[in-house]
Amino acid sequence: MTYCVAIRRQDGLIFGSDTRTSAGVDYVTSYRKMHVFKPGPDRFFVILSAGSLATTQEVIHWLARDLEANDGRPSLLTVKYLFEAAHYVGQVSRAVQNQYAATLATAGVNGETTLIVGGQIGTEPHDIFLIYPQGNFIEASDDTPYLQIGESKYGKPMLDRLVTQTMSLEDTARLALVSLDATIRSNLTVGAPVDLALYRTGEFTLSREFRFEADSPYYVALKEAWQKGITELFYTLPQFDAEPPR
Amino acid sequence: MTYCVAIRRQDGLIFGSDTRTSAGVDYVTSYRKMHVFKPGPDRFFVILSAGSLATTQEVIHWLARDLEANDGRPSLLTVKYLFEAAHYVGQVSRAVQNQYAATLATAGVNGETTLIVGGQIGTEPHDIFLIYPQGNFIEASDDTPYLQIGESKYGKPMLDRLVTQTMSLEDTARLALVSLDATIRSNLTVGAPVDLALYRTGEFTLSREFRFEADSPYYVALKEAWQKGITELFYTLPQFDAEPPR
Repeated sequence: MTYCVAIRRQDGLIFGSDTRTSAGVDYVTSYRKMHVFKPGPDRFFVILSAGSLATTQEVIHWLARDLEANDGRPSLLTVKYLFEAAHYVGQVSRAVQNQYAATLATAGVNGETTLIVGGQIGTEPHDIFLIYPQGNFIEASDDTPYLQIGESKYGKPMLDRLVTQTMSLEDTARLALVSLDATIRSNLTVGAPVDLALYRTGEFTLSREFRFEADSPYYVALKEAWQKGITELFYTLPQFDAEPPR
Repeated sequence: MTYCVAIRRQDGLIFGSDTRTSAGVDYVTSYRKMHVFKPGPDRFFVILSAGSLATTQEVIHWLARDLEANDGRPSLLTVKYLFEAAHYVGQVSRAVQNQYAATLATAGVNGETTLIVGGQIGTEPHDIFLIYPQGNFIEASDDTPYLQIGESKYGKPMLDRLVTQTMSLEDTARLALVSLDATIRSNLTVGAPVDLALYRTGEFTLSREFRFEADSPYYVALKEAWQKGITELFYTLPQFDAEPPR
């Protein structure tokens, strides 16, 4: 399982992902699920992945091969709008999956992958898209400024409570980390290290990038402050009528 | 959909449930999912239900009929241990489902129900059991003192963070309400009014019982204090290295 989240702010984008990969509970490994492409000086893409590791890896290889070919075929260098990047990546994902669809179905294995593509092209606005295994895709909106893939439920309540249009890019990144941590606590198949990246609009490179191990000092401090604060807050909640005083 | 939670403490039990029932998004109604049985002076049961409303209602009717028959057949009056109550309720659930299994399968409808049975019999310890649609069941433990049915993921992080062996029964009830509220915020198919009940060991009746509408003053005060507190807490979390001051 996996948990990845992307958040769109007015001044940029936040990407967060865990690294745990499992083929059954007895084969658990770590793979980076955040993939960065900078095909030119005015275009920049981050791709997050959830689903079949084989499919995802082959999709990433195909994207790189299309870029290197540079022979006019569609690639992250030829797309003019970010939705075209989402469409192109969706088509690659479908083509990769189609190769194995029949054999995987026979084996009862799911080869699907769900992707998030975010970034910016030229003077177009930065944006994030979620690409379904079937290749179609949805975009974030001002009302729903975040997209999640994988094990999304545990990390959703804090996003819903805390995301605002005015918080800083750093606060938004911290919120993504809080959301990732909630998921890691509740689901063993989502785990550290955690990748966290900040993209500031117009920069065409990552503004900041973090990798937090479970015992990284900052991540530990954040987890402890959050746990302590929530516990203290809980015991200040209003009491029921006629409840014995604490 | 549904969310119900039961928590076992040393001095008693907490039960919480929402009331939203839906047959498709265009037929949404409210039904109580918390059912109380007091078949005798020294036995007391609470049943929470998630799944097919038709199945659940018929199970509850059968339990009442078996009690009223009082002719030696198994019932909540004849079981000697709480695990026997769980076993009996599981058998009733299976028998009810089996009546319709073939026709429901033809129609592509799921008639399953998942139940939580909690309570106390005589001098036996109070306890809670989760009964699967197939009739088998699991018990809470000191390590995992809560059981959830229905849409359980949104409400799990706060249970994991806050449940302790030493909190009061009232604090435990408040935690169940916080867990329910997290679920209601994130999933439209889980909704108020919310039922919340406290059982204190040896009392063989509910110690306290609440029904909170979405606009009940206590529930509103709790939601507001929790939301305000979490927001304030979030903005006190440690900042990244070299992050611009807030």
